[in-house]
Amino acid sequence: MKLTCSKSNLLKSVNIVMKAVPAKTTMPILECILIDASANEIKFTSNDMELGIETKVEGNIIDKGIVALDAKIFSEIIRKLPDSDVTIETDSNLQTLITCEKAKFSISGKSGEDFSYLPYVEKNDFITLSQFTLKEVIRQTIFSIAANENNKMMTGELFEIEGSRLKVVSLDGHRISIRKIELKNEYPKKKVVVPGKTLTEISKILSGETEDMADIFFTDNHIVFEFNNTVVVSRLIEGEYFRIDQMLSSDYETKVEINKRELLDCIDRATLLVKEGDKKPIIIHIGDEAMELKINSQIGSMDEEIDIRKEGKDILIGFNPKFLIDALRVIDDETVTIYLVNPKAPCFIRDEEQSYIYLILPVNFTA
Amino acid sequence: MKLTCSKSNLLKSVNIVMKAVPAKTTMPILECILIDASANEIKFTSNDMELGIETKVEGNIIDKGIVALDAKIFSEIIRKLPDSDVTIETDSNLQTLITCEKAKFSISGKSGEDFSYLPYVEKNDFITLSQFTLKEVIRQTIFSIAANENNKMMTGELFEIEGSRLKVVSLDGHRISIRKIELKNEYPKKKVVVPGKTLTEISKILSGETEDMADIFFTDNHIVFEFNNTVVVSRLIEGEYFRIDQMLSSDYETKVEINKRELLDCIDRATLLVKEGDKKPIIIHIGDEAMELKINSQIGSMDEEIDIRKEGKDILIGFNPKFLIDALRVIDDETVTIYLVNPKAPCFIRDEEQSYIYLILPVNFTA
Repeated sequence: MKLTCSKSNLLKSVNIVMKAVPAKTTMPILECILIDASANEIKFTSNDMELGIETKVEGNIIDKGIVALDAKIFSEIIRKLPDSDVTIETDSNLQTLITCEKAKFSISGKSGEDFSYLPYVEKNDFITLSQFTLKEVIRQTIFSIAANENNKMMTGELFEIEGSRLKVVSLDGHRISIRKIELKNEYPKKKVVVPGKTLTEISKILSGETEDMADIFFTDNHIVFEFNNTVVVSRLIEGEYFRIDQMLSSDYETKVEINKRELLDCIDRATLLVKEGDKKPIIIHIGDEAMELKINSQIGSMDEEIDIRKEGKDILIGFNPKFLIDALRVIDDETVTIYLVNPKAPCFIRDEEQSYIYLILPVNFTA
Repeated sequence: MKLTCSKSNLLKSVNIVMKAVPAKTTMPILECILIDASANEIKFTSNDMELGIETKVEGNIIDKGIVALDAKIFSEIIRKLPDSDVTIETDSNLQTLITCEKAKFSISGKSGEDFSYLPYVEKNDFITLSQFTLKEVIRQTIFSIAANENNKMMTGELFEIEGSRLKVVSLDGHRISIRKIELKNEYPKKKVVVPGKTLTEISKILSGETEDMADIFFTDNHIVFEFNNTVVVSRLIEGEYFRIDQMLSSDYETKVEINKRELLDCIDRATLLVKEGDKKPIIIHIGDEAMELKINSQIGSMDEEIDIRKEGKDILIGFNPKFLIDALRVIDDETVTIYLVNPKAPCFIRDEEQSYIYLILPVNFTA
């Protein structure tokens, strides 16, 4: 195999496929990037058996061929080469020579035969949305998946399509995050659970531009994202997602409108009195025109008042401050509305159209 | 005690004194910042018993007094307050209320009596130089002190004043870094060894501006830096520094002029084949018009050629690549000159006027 590419193209493609190179594995071949120039195009592939990425690389093929190179070494070499044309050439023993200007690197390659290619996926059902929207919806929900593998279903996110609406849901047992997106077209009903890791990695390689589009294909076992000459294939999490509709009551006793920035800054300040692992709640008292926030810990105490517009009853309620911060950080509105029932029932932060709903369970506290 | 300061002034001062707050200590009082408003000015002090910092804070004293506050908590509170005026008020039990707009923090303080004040230092001998120059000379030498405490003297830097010249030296047994600076005035002879930690911390709080000056005072046991309303007092390392003059021969067999950027980039590339802890040398062959650099490791091999201007003999010599990188990174010249004798003798990277000299010992290698 012999091919030439610009350093910048190589680096862009390497950075994309690196996202599916496992940090640790018992199968050394998975620590490689497959360079496939066996046909008329150059493709890089990586695969950690749950997530696989393939991307086309602009360049010229001089001799066709395939080689698998250690991903970490290969990416570091590319990164440190001068900004010029790079030649990658393998001999019959798969020893690979990487040349750029006067720099010559020689590393050993592996046969492509042992590599796990991406699964073949039938591309029937699909939706199209902007990379910006996809990246945003991941950011706005990914924080409330469960890190713990004990409940596999909670480590993923529900992607549900109904008509022209995509609903994305994540939950971890203490809170639920829901985002709804209007798509340009109507699509058949679809409901899948996508691993959180897949979404985290994909959001790193999405461009984030509103004019760049991404296609998402669904099969029974896989989800496929296609954008910018890149294909990402991920297994789905099997089983039925939690029924959340019954938890989403729209009754409330107290409704509060509050400046998001002020509330977020105040809770952020309060958390500095809480050491890692210490579960001190922030105690919120909602009165007629002000919300009073208090926290008490071994380190010290804080209290602060914020002006609000209130409808309904006064209430005294406690929350894990982190959960409030996580939700408020991903809401772009200047003013948020919070709905409360009683000190034992979840609160909802949601907009009028319910394009976002953040449900957070309160915590007990001793006043 | 009761005083008011702007958040920005408080933050600036807290960041300065934080540099002398020990990360770990058996004396809890040292983890505090002393707020001293007992006279007509507000001063913050910190002291880890080797290094002490005192800085004046702009603000208004309403009631005179002194309190010591946990440095970490206090700095985090200040950092997260709104950008407004801050009131700090202690009651008779040293409980301290920090108020800013509607935010109120309450933390407990300690008596200032237990605090270790900065040692009183006679200010006779001193030199003046720009903060830029001081910061630069530290950066250009600090990397070659020894991290290991086994040889205390090697963990410091020699500051030697003779006439109008300041010479700064660091060495770790494998290399020596020397920088010479012309001062504006003549000063009496002086020779002290300053702890590396002091220099690292002080370079973080120096402004780095050429028009801002710093005074340095010397006593038998202490060095004092004064700049921007801040006083830094550090113990000196006792004993006599290494005699380095006999190691600085100016004889050479080979003299090479080379583009610094090209050499640095090439060595930097080569090091990616060397894993942490692996001591693979970079092997340099100096021929008539080119320098060839080679590295061989389990990961792979690299070789590269760089154009040079050479006087004298050809030579084949090996170096720890890190030592070359460290020295080249802090030299601003576009072209550097390297002087070599033989594969067993140190090489010198130095300019014509010897305003900088970097001596590096070669390593054995099997060609």
